[in-house]
Amino acid sequence: MNAEILSTGDEVRTGAIVDSNSAYIAQQLEDVGAMVFRHNCVGDDLDMLAEILTEISHRADICVVTGGLGPTQDDLTAQAAAKAAGVELAYDNDALTWIEALFAARNRPMSPSNKKQALLPVGASCLVNPVGTAPGFVLKIHQCTFFFLPGVPHEMRRMISDHVLPRLSVMQGENRIFYKVKNLSTFGLTEAATGEHLTEIPRIFPHIKLGLRASFPEIHIKLYGQGTDSYLLEQEFQNAIQWIQNKLGIYLLSVEGDSMEKVVGDLLCEKRSTVAIAESCTGGLISHKLTEIPGSSDYFLFSGIAYSNEAKSNVLGVSPETIARYGAVHEITAKEMAQGVKRITGATYGLSTSGIAGPDGGTEDKPVGTVCIGLATPESVEGFRYRFNFGRRSMNKEIFAVSALDILRRKLLVS
Amino acid sequence: MNAEILSTGDEVRTGAIVDSNSAYIAQQLEDVGAMVFRHNCVGDDLDMLAEILTEISHRADICVVTGGLGPTQDDLTAQAAAKAAGVELAYDNDALTWIEALFAARNRPMSPSNKKQALLPVGASCLVNPVGTAPGFVLKIHQCTFFFLPGVPHEMRRMISDHVLPRLSVMQGENRIFYKVKNLSTFGLTEAATGEHLTEIPRIFPHIKLGLRASFPEIHIKLYGQGTDSYLLEQEFQNAIQWIQNKLGIYLLSVEGDSMEKVVGDLLCEKRSTVAIAESCTGGLISHKLTEIPGSSDYFLFSGIAYSNEAKSNVLGVSPETIARYGAVHEITAKEMAQGVKRITGATYGLSTSGIAGPDGGTEDKPVGTVCIGLATPESVEGFRYRFNFGRRSMNKEIFAVSALDILRRKLLVS
Repeated sequence: MNAEILSTGDEVRTGAIVDSNSAYIAQQLEDVGAMVFRHNCVGDDLDMLAEILTEISHRADICVVTGGLGPTQDDLTAQAAAKAAGVELAYDNDALTWIEALFAARNRPMSPSNKKQALLPVGASCLVNPVGTAPGFVLKIHQCTFFFLPGVPHEMRRMISDHVLPRLSVMQGENRIFYKVKNLSTFGLTEAATGEHLTEIPRIFPHIKLGLRASFPEIHIKLYGQGTDSYLLEQEFQNAIQWIQNKLGIYLLSVEGDSMEKVVGDLLCEKRSTVAIAESCTGGLISHKLTEIPGSSDYFLFSGIAYSNEAKSNVLGVSPETIARYGAVHEITAKEMAQGVKRITGATYGLSTSGIAGPDGGTEDKPVGTVCIGLATPESVEGFRYRFNFGRRSMNKEIFAVSALDILRRKLLVS
Repeated sequence: MNAEILSTGDEVRTGAIVDSNSAYIAQQLEDVGAMVFRHNCVGDDLDMLAEILTEISHRADICVVTGGLGPTQDDLTAQAAAKAAGVELAYDNDALTWIEALFAARNRPMSPSNKKQALLPVGASCLVNPVGTAPGFVLKIHQCTFFFLPGVPHEMRRMISDHVLPRLSVMQGENRIFYKVKNLSTFGLTEAATGEHLTEIPRIFPHIKLGLRASFPEIHIKLYGQGTDSYLLEQEFQNAIQWIQNKLGIYLLSVEGDSMEKVVGDLLCEKRSTVAIAESCTGGLISHKLTEIPGSSDYFLFSGIAYSNEAKSNVLGVSPETIARYGAVHEITAKEMAQGVKRITGATYGLSTSGIAGPDGGTEDKPVGTVCIGLATPESVEGFRYRFNFGRRSMNKEIFAVSALDILRRKLLVS
């Protein structure tokens, strides 16, 4: 089954945004055995859209199109699809009912431009969008089945799994080859070092192909397998995962691909423990990460984000002498921050960061990229110092935050 | 001058890597007035490469091709270009001399596969690569001038500036068309409503094209203009921006496309004011956003993230009676949180959030998506309540955080 991808929109055409959708779609299609042989992109131009859809309709078996389904004037995809298929646009009852229900549920008036989103080419079937207001649609033009999806990444991703993959499976029928994909998350080794640990995989597990992906600062391992026997394929996956667990040890975060904050949250739940955070250089990112996880109110009690030395002393109880003697960025200061926030909240664990995220504020002694981390536990308090060098402020905040959570994770695993 | 971009390589085709090169190239070309009307991508396949090069050679004036210039078997670009142009490959003297000098300078032996990199289509001119070992080349096929560059991003970027842009300037000569792009950020109106406010733009400003992009929860407006007179184009842009400012009023965040947190940070700097935050449902996201901006330590003093009622009382000084009487999610509680954090830190402004991000914890009275926001200023304290419904926890946190910052922004604008 030959597949193509078409991204639409002037933002992508002019390079205002990087098209990450196409890579995601290509991976998903390749994973289920549809070979992607071409990516295309054109802007918000009716004639060009219709022309490229016509070209693809003679070349591919399936095509995923993203973008141009919104309510505004420059959203031309449905019109272009109708032109390529040589049909009219008409209000689609399913789409209209669904959009009306959506606005009714939100207690918001539906504007005429939202109604436009229910105008689909005659012959198209509406694809409900469970996480947005623009419905997609599927339409066969000449030899090719086109899936038209929104360009907003999380909406597109949801519709790939809800609509596209199940329909592809039906289209493949009896000639089905079984595909399996598994994502494992790791932290603490570079991408190159992770790869070196796993070089033997293709030899030991011949049906499994390995891919590494940096999801900064985590490294994710992707296992792709294919075979004609689903049972044997499943066995080989289980063996490979066991083998990777032995090989990577503490560096393996999760065999489900879970993020650091999810893994730490699950461990806190499992140990019936709570945590409080004292953040300086990470500026709320540790707390934001932990509270992204539903149910985090069970274990996340409080975080104090103290940029100023006054706040470190007044709210978190760090002694002004410590700051005067060692400075704000020091293991001893970090330890007092962790102890302080543990004390005022009664949490099982107190975790702290103090460091220099940049671009300014570095010294010869403590250059940008330096972070001190404190961990107060029921038994003790420990201080750590690391030096990273990723250049950008946001990357420094990210690696500082995940490193602090990793210290807590390692402690929870042995507690 | 019509331009296209062609990315080659199985990594991009299968989605193993995101193609960020194409966005970069598109921006560079658009900036000098070459209109990019199409992006393409195919894998490492000789026939497909030759076929797509042939197509483009009849369609575009110029095309930038990336990838496939390396020393290995799957580097097929030069071969495909020769096939499309109907010429042979031959050792290019410039390229050969340059590669030999490169290896001599590095004191490394030159392998036969490196010599292969000097095999160029007859008629091509070598483009020296100052930061890598693969030379590029330029070749006219039919009506189109192709620039073949390496796929390694920093090599490609260097060769765009060293070779492609200077040659485009020569090719354009007298007929140069000027292009201008401008990005404005807004918050508070839906994409549809924003579009409806701006429908007259194409009529009033005929050289300007409008694009809207949701950068949740902000909506960004992109203006694309082109004309033969750079002075008149600049004037039309200034008038259009003024027109949009009048039309959108308080909903316009920034005519430079700045984010909410950047705008609020700049206002705090300008007014020499400071802020302290008391977050509940936003879980650190407001603080994380504010501290992403370099220099935020000048105005961001402290944030207390209090999930539990105990922390709201003990650390932020909310009276337990208020929580008992009104609950944690209430305007009155939010007002006390804002006052409390302002008091303990001495900040000019105290800003707070308390709400229900979901997926659980909603009630009939206070469903998931409800947020109460408090703002304490030197003069007063105000409370607000909103109800959003975006389904996902992370989207709720995002809209809650940006709505709170927007309340502070509106206050700062009139203070």
